[in-house]
Amino acid sequence: MPADSNTGMALTLVDGKPADSIPADDRGLAYGDGVFRTMAVRAGKAPLWSRHYTKLSADCRALAITPPDETLLLEDLRHITAGMPDCALKITVTRGSGGRGYAMPGTVIPRRIVAASPLPDYPAEYVAQGVSVRYCRQRLALQPALAGVKHLNRLENVLARAEWHDPSIAEGLLLDTDGAVIEGTRCNLFLVERGNVLITPDLSRCGVAGVTRDAVIELAEKNGMDCRLETVSCERLEAASEVLLVNSLIGVWPVARIEARTWDRFETATRVRKWLHVLADPSV
Amino acid sequence: MPADSNTGMALTLVDGKPADSIPADDRGLAYGDGVFRTMAVRAGKAPLWSRHYTKLSADCRALAITPPDETLLLEDLRHITAGMPDCALKITVTRGSGGRGYAMPGTVIPRRIVAASPLPDYPAEYVAQGVSVRYCRQRLALQPALAGVKHLNRLENVLARAEWHDPSIAEGLLLDTDGAVIEGTRCNLFLVERGNVLITPDLSRCGVAGVTRDAVIELAEKNGMDCRLETVSCERLEAASEVLLVNSLIGVWPVARIEARTWDRFETATRVRKWLHVLADPSV
Repeated sequence: MPADSNTGMALTLVDGKPADSIPADDRGLAYGDGVFRTMAVRAGKAPLWSRHYTKLSADCRALAITPPDETLLLEDLRHITAGMPDCALKITVTRGSGGRGYAMPGTVIPRRIVAASPLPDYPAEYVAQGVSVRYCRQRLALQPALAGVKHLNRLENVLARAEWHDPSIAEGLLLDTDGAVIEGTRCNLFLVERGNVLITPDLSRCGVAGVTRDAVIELAEKNGMDCRLETVSCERLEAASEVLLVNSLIGVWPVARIEARTWDRFETATRVRKWLHVLADPSV
Repeated sequence: MPADSNTGMALTLVDGKPADSIPADDRGLAYGDGVFRTMAVRAGKAPLWSRHYTKLSADCRALAITPPDETLLLEDLRHITAGMPDCALKITVTRGSGGRGYAMPGTVIPRRIVAASPLPDYPAEYVAQGVSVRYCRQRLALQPALAGVKHLNRLENVLARAEWHDPSIAEGLLLDTDGAVIEGTRCNLFLVERGNVLITPDLSRCGVAGVTRDAVIELAEKNGMDCRLETVSCERLEAASEVLLVNSLIGVWPVARIEARTWDRFETATRVRKWLHVLADPSV
């Protein structure tokens, strides 16, 4: 059944079939035993699809889950976008049903859940004028075994996002328990130093390494801009000449304010956004 | 060999109604946004029910989820045990469906899932002769905001339990990222020092504070045995005169072996087991 984007109704496929439910014994529910990705689909196309599929597969393998075949996911994408060519697409892969307690079942069939919902309607000025962000009190625990992986254990993000209701705050920044700045609740972070060096927090101990972040790291190199993965303190962040938030849905948002610190020049944000546009559509 | 839970059909109630599925947009699946408890039910009775309900409610509140009314859960328990008077009962409470991304929905109805499965059939010698355990390589991250809470973000436990397949190993011990011994993958831990002092790891930075652990802490005091919450290194654990594993399903298992270290006297395990029996059924 085609989704009705006006009512915000989501369309969901579970293992390729339209469904609005999943088995109650799914280990994704029981333990957060799975991974997910979110991406923008426009006119039936998912920009950077190959990167998303590669990252989804890598995240599955980090949890010893067999990744779904790409052809199945592309069929799901076609099925869903036939009714909803513009959407936010969320792909979840869980370990599946079964097993006794925490022990993984001997044989298990991973479950894939592909859900479309309307693209978020962010204010246009977020791109042009930048966004206001805050520091979250909730910290990210240091867990190298899961760092970088977009798994389903996301209570830290939920608790962090619950800290503010002010709609003028577009995002919250998460620090780790050592006080290093890691990411936004739903995006990655870059800063600009000395006019032409990009820095993004090292995610080897916590955080989610997004596809857009990976693309920006590559694109910087390709475009002759130095890009480094380093430890970033709040002081360092606030001393940066620009701060950028990136993910697959928002693209690139420049930061205009972090609490008392403000910025009003966004040249690098504009430059990085252009790189990403060309990467997503080389004919541009 | 432990019995396979597949030999008995699980019975599940979702919000009080028999169901084998949950809505695909449940936040328990999306983010592990919920809590759970597991307990033994025998002849239709759940020992220490009040403690389980109190802990479930406290865990819900730790995540700002409204706990379900006790009367609803007791109705679920009656409904389920009418068909299965002896079972392992699992109660899961999720935040419910909805919300945009990590943000909690403005109004949300928590979902309760009550599932019965056959009681695990542990070897009788586990109680009489103790169990062999191992140290897991997987470490627990330090996250004070979630420490003690039995939430649905349990990938650390899943990864730890996947480290061994040897059926002679009954449990794996989890250390935190600082090297302190915290718990088993599915149980809490006590050690005995100087013949009559109980020590259990401090769980203020990670770990799950179980109902049986809380009961043993109280019962020790009541029975004139000193019980302390402290930091426990591997060296300290192995120097103990006894090590006990506890949870609602296993009761009390003495540890007979941790890798090269062995024990063969289990007086305190026997004593603690007796305390718990009397607590569960004061007429004993």
